[in-house]
Amino acid sequence: MAKRNFVIIGHRARTDADWKLDDLCGGAGRLDILVRCVTASLWKSHGIRKETEVWLILNGPPNAPITVHFSGKNIRYLNPDERSTAALIRNGLIKYKNEYNIMETSPGITMERIGLEEVLTKLPSPLLLSENGEDKMTNDGTFILGDDKDPTEEEMEILEKLPKISLGKESLLSSACITLIHHPLDFKKHGSHNS
Amino acid sequence: MAKRNFVIIGHRARTDADWKLDDLCGGAGRLDILVRCVTASLWKSHGIRKETEVWLILNGPPNAPITVHFSGKNIRYLNPDERSTAALIRNGLIKYKNEYNIMETSPGITMERIGLEEVLTKLPSPLLLSENGEDKMTNDGTFILGDDKDPTEEEMEILEKLPKISLGKESLLSSACITLIHHPLDFKKHGSHNS
Repeated sequence: MAKRNFVIIGHRARTDADWKLDDLCGGAGRLDILVRCVTASLWKSHGIRKETEVWLILNGPPNAPITVHFSGKNIRYLNPDERSTAALIRNGLIKYKNEYNIMETSPGITMERIGLEEVLTKLPSPLLLSENGEDKMTNDGTFILGDDKDPTEEEMEILEKLPKISLGKESLLSSACITLIHHPLDFKKHGSHNS
Repeated sequence: MAKRNFVIIGHRARTDADWKLDDLCGGAGRLDILVRCVTASLWKSHGIRKETEVWLILNGPPNAPITVHFSGKNIRYLNPDERSTAALIRNGLIKYKNEYNIMETSPGITMERIGLEEVLTKLPSPLLLSENGEDKMTNDGTFILGDDKDPTEEEMEILEKLPKISLGKESLLSSACITLIHHPLDFKKHGSHNS
C-alpha cells in the first residue's frame, strides 16, 4: 500500500464515456479538476512519484459511483497534461462499461464500482482537507479533497468524523492543495536543502 | 505594476497559431507547461489573484520572441483548464500575426515582440528559481522559471547575475513551483491560520 494517498471527490464527474476530450469542464462534469489533481499528485519534474496513489471518485451520471485508482508504482502512459490523462480515464470507462468487478483498464489504472466510504476502508490515516481544519501538517497518510462543490450531506456523515487539516486562509484549487501537502512531506523525507 | 510577477520561458512555444488545441504538448511546443503555469499563477479556488501578473516568453518558431502578458487585475474569459487558456493564446496569436506594436489581444492579455532581457527591465526584484539556489523565501517580486528545458547560454548570461532561490531537493513541475512560491507570501500577507 502506498504511503501517500490522495482521494478526490468528483461530484458531477461522468461515469460513462459519453463526453468529448474537448469538453472536460462541461460535458465530462468538471473532469478538468480531477485530472489536474492527478498531475499534481503523481508528477515531479522528470518522473512519477512511485510512492503516491490517487483515487478519483466519479459521482456523476449515469452509473455512480466509479472509483478510478492511479498507482504511482505501476502507472504507464501518463503525461502531465489534462487531455491525455482524461483520455486514459475515458478509454478506461469504455472498457469498463459492462463490467461489475474491479478491472485494470490500462497499466496502473484500476476501476471499481465503489464510492467514498468503501475507498476509505482501504486507506491509512485519512485526513480531510478543510478551510476550518487545524493548521498543522502531518505524516504521510490519506488526504481527502473535493472538486469545486462542497461535500453532500451523505459525504459529510462520513467525513465529519475525520481529523481535519488546513493549508491557510486562502481558498485554493484542489491541485494546488495537493502540491502544498507534498512539499513539507518531501522536506521531511529529504531534509532541508541546506541542512 | 503588480507586486507578484511570474516569468516563464517557453523554449519551443510556437509564435504563430499553426497548431491545434488538441496538441498542446506536441505541435504547440509544450504550451501545456506554460498554460499550467498561468493557472497556478492566477487562480485561487473561486477567483483570480488580482495582484499577480504572468509573462509567458514564447521562444519557438517561426517568429520568436513574443511575450504574452496576463494581468490578474484586468483578465477576462480566463478559466482554470489548459485548453481554454491555450485558446486565448492561440486566438491572440492569430490577431497579432502582422502586428509589430504591443497589442491587447483580449481583455487583460497583451502581446509584444520582446524577449527575456526586455521583459526583465520592466519588472521589480527579479529572482531565478534554481535547484542550486539558496533555501529562503523572499518578499513579493519577480520569479523566473523555465519549461522542461534548461536555459540556453544566451539566457544564462542574463540570468546568472540574478539572486537565486530554491524550493528544496525535489525537482518539481514549474506550475507546482509557482504554487509553492505563492503560499508563504500569502501567509505573510494574511498571517497564520491560527494566529
